[in-house]
Amino acid sequence: MIDWGLSDHELAALVRGVGRDDDDEGDRHETMARALWSLLVEPGDADAAVLVWAVGAVEAARLMLESPVARSVAAATGGELAGARATRALGRWLPRRRRDDLVRALESAARCRARLLVPGDAHWPERLDDLGEHVPLALWVRGESELLLEPSVAVVGARAASGYGEHVAMELSAGIVQRGGVVVSGGAYGIDGMAHRAALASGGGTVAVLAGGIDRFYPAGHEALLTRIAQQGVVIAEAPCGAAPTRWRFLQRNRIIAALGGATIVVEAGRRSGSLSTARKALEIGRPVGAVPGPVTSATSAGCHALLREGPVTCVTTPGEVVELLSAWRSASASEVEAPSGPAAGDDAGDPPDPDGLMTRVLDALRPRREQSVDELARAVGEAPSRIRGVLGALALEERAFAGESGWIRRTAAAS
Amino acid sequence: MIDWGLSDHELAALVRGVGRDDDDEGDRHETMARALWSLLVEPGDADAAVLVWAVGAVEAARLMLESPVARSVAAATGGELAGARATRALGRWLPRRRRDDLVRALESAARCRARLLVPGDAHWPERLDDLGEHVPLALWVRGESELLLEPSVAVVGARAASGYGEHVAMELSAGIVQRGGVVVSGGAYGIDGMAHRAALASGGGTVAVLAGGIDRFYPAGHEALLTRIAQQGVVIAEAPCGAAPTRWRFLQRNRIIAALGGATIVVEAGRRSGSLSTARKALEIGRPVGAVPGPVTSATSAGCHALLREGPVTCVTTPGEVVELLSAWRSASASEVEAPSGPAAGDDAGDPPDPDGLMTRVLDALRPRREQSVDELARAVGEAPSRIRGVLGALALEERAFAGESGWIRRTAAAS
Repeated sequence: MIDWGLSDHELAALVRGVGRDDDDEGDRHETMARALWSLLVEPGDADAAVLVWAVGAVEAARLMLESPVARSVAAATGGELAGARATRALGRWLPRRRRDDLVRALESAARCRARLLVPGDAHWPERLDDLGEHVPLALWVRGESELLLEPSVAVVGARAASGYGEHVAMELSAGIVQRGGVVVSGGAYGIDGMAHRAALASGGGTVAVLAGGIDRFYPAGHEALLTRIAQQGVVIAEAPCGAAPTRWRFLQRNRIIAALGGATIVVEAGRRSGSLSTARKALEIGRPVGAVPGPVTSATSAGCHALLREGPVTCVTTPGEVVELLSAWRSASASEVEAPSGPAAGDDAGDPPDPDGLMTRVLDALRPRREQSVDELARAVGEAPSRIRGVLGALALEERAFAGESGWIRRTAAAS
Repeated sequence: MIDWGLSDHELAALVRGVGRDDDDEGDRHETMARALWSLLVEPGDADAAVLVWAVGAVEAARLMLESPVARSVAAATGGELAGARATRALGRWLPRRRRDDLVRALESAARCRARLLVPGDAHWPERLDDLGEHVPLALWVRGESELLLEPSVAVVGARAASGYGEHVAMELSAGIVQRGGVVVSGGAYGIDGMAHRAALASGGGTVAVLAGGIDRFYPAGHEALLTRIAQQGVVIAEAPCGAAPTRWRFLQRNRIIAALGGATIVVEAGRRSGSLSTARKALEIGRPVGAVPGPVTSATSAGCHALLREGPVTCVTTPGEVVELLSAWRSASASEVEAPSGPAAGDDAGDPPDPDGLMTRVLDALRPRREQSVDELARAVGEAPSRIRGVLGALALEERAFAGESGWIRRTAAAS
């Protein structure tokens, strides 16, 4: 199989460390390959999914380690990933192809008792397949992973929630678990935190989906809460241990929340709340979305009202109404009345002005006080150095970054 | 023409008294005939509309005064109103066919400077035609009747409004008149009153639609407000002067509000608020309906949320969004993209369990401490004595009424 540059003993220890079977050689390589892919790509990378679907994770990993040229990628995918697209994909994956980082990610995971979950595992939530090409290639998990298979509702909302929003999040969340549902959320301050807390307090299951690695809980103020969720519920992430929670990863994390929930409920959200992106993603993959109304005089409900005005979004006010939404989805998917609409093909998963979110991701990686080389940024971002250079140029024009003596620096509001 | 049992001088004075042209003989008779029909029927009587459409108000009035038999009605309507239906209609109209009452209603109107508005008048709001067979046969008006032709929004809601609801009613109403719209409402306490007040305070037009006669303002606590509306806006009613505001008339009044408004907005409503019937009537005749969301913890917003969940109802939070609804309706009616859906035929304008609302109307007429004969009740209700007797029997079975020594009495909650 693949030479991972490790002794059999080391390899087995790493595989066992992330809770997987080290007896079977195939499983060992699958584990290493999925862990590698989790490291190589940014969440939501459709090209990686295409390659992994075509030849499997192990072969795709071998290709990265032994024959990382566009021609090989094109051949492996029967031409689906060819030409400039294959070149671009390799350009962003190869800067991160470092065995040390892979070993470090696996060791970090083992230290915090995180396990690797891959498609085909008993607890792998197949509902994630509705994400199409944007399906995660692996998940890192701490806690009761069987909760990922339970009927779930995503309860999301503003970090800067009002007392009203927190109260409603608590009521809905408690009602959902009392009806046998699991509450999925993002572990953030405000609505997310209250949704998790109420689920735990009612003795129910809850899933926290993090944007960064699950070896370090973010936000720091939720360390205790997330630790409890890892014990009584489950904390998961697509990014490997050691990965920072960048803005791009927050956006992509939202799609996992949307796909895990049989329905998504936005409890309270300002006009620009990230939870609106979760709602839109849920609609995109054919999940019912509910929004909780609030006073029209409250800015923290404006996003909910916008959803109610825009779309096929249901006004929900009680746990019973939430569960109705869920039942509607389950009967619809059971009878296949509504095929989930597939996500758009290619790498157009972001907002139009920044199609693959590269600008956001570079801004995430830049530091205000430390100069970083283009290669360093390319690795942090997971993109080819040539594209990083282009984006840095654009950011410099917009006065959001500038080149220092030995690298690039982020321009802060105060500095500009 | 018709012998009204009055001298030419008396007739001319009555006609002039309600603001109409007494020079033209035809106009004099039309005025008297419409006033008579306003007296004979309860609001929303489809059979009366059928007869008046068939032969005109004057001929229909002559038929009532000179040849009040089912055969004449059938002949006049080309058989559309025949058999039992014609007999039933005559049964409920004839008990009220009293010239004294007609003269008294006209004199009351003159005293309070109320004018009679009939179809074909310059200020008659043709949008009422969308009510089909339930179109009013005449309107009694105090104030600026040209406001009935302006682009209007019905702003309605709970009498027991919260501070939040009143605040939003005020904001929306002020915003509507600032955008050139007229605010239509029902003159009640709570949301209605606030909507009228804000319209007046912003120097805009407002229409109050009352359930009873406009000679006596109801509710009494809104005497001053309704007097101001009669001066700066317009107060209208379908029922003649002297008519009491019964529950049936409140329900029927709501259809006038719905038809006058280019859109209907429910600001705040409990689950059983009468304003929900206004919203449903508006939907029935093809008008857009908006509901203002509120805290899900507030019972006074539960009706709004129910509307948002049930139907093609838009969530509205700002005056701009209200006016959008109105524009949508106006462009739709201009291009006739959406033909207004006609109301159901026949006399099924009420709720299923009490198809023509007769039970409600009899309950309205019954008094808890004064015995009334069946004939007396028949006149008050505007229905044939035989049908009144049937309903009284049913009410007695339900222990809601009982027969005293010389007539019927309403059983109060305390008495039962």
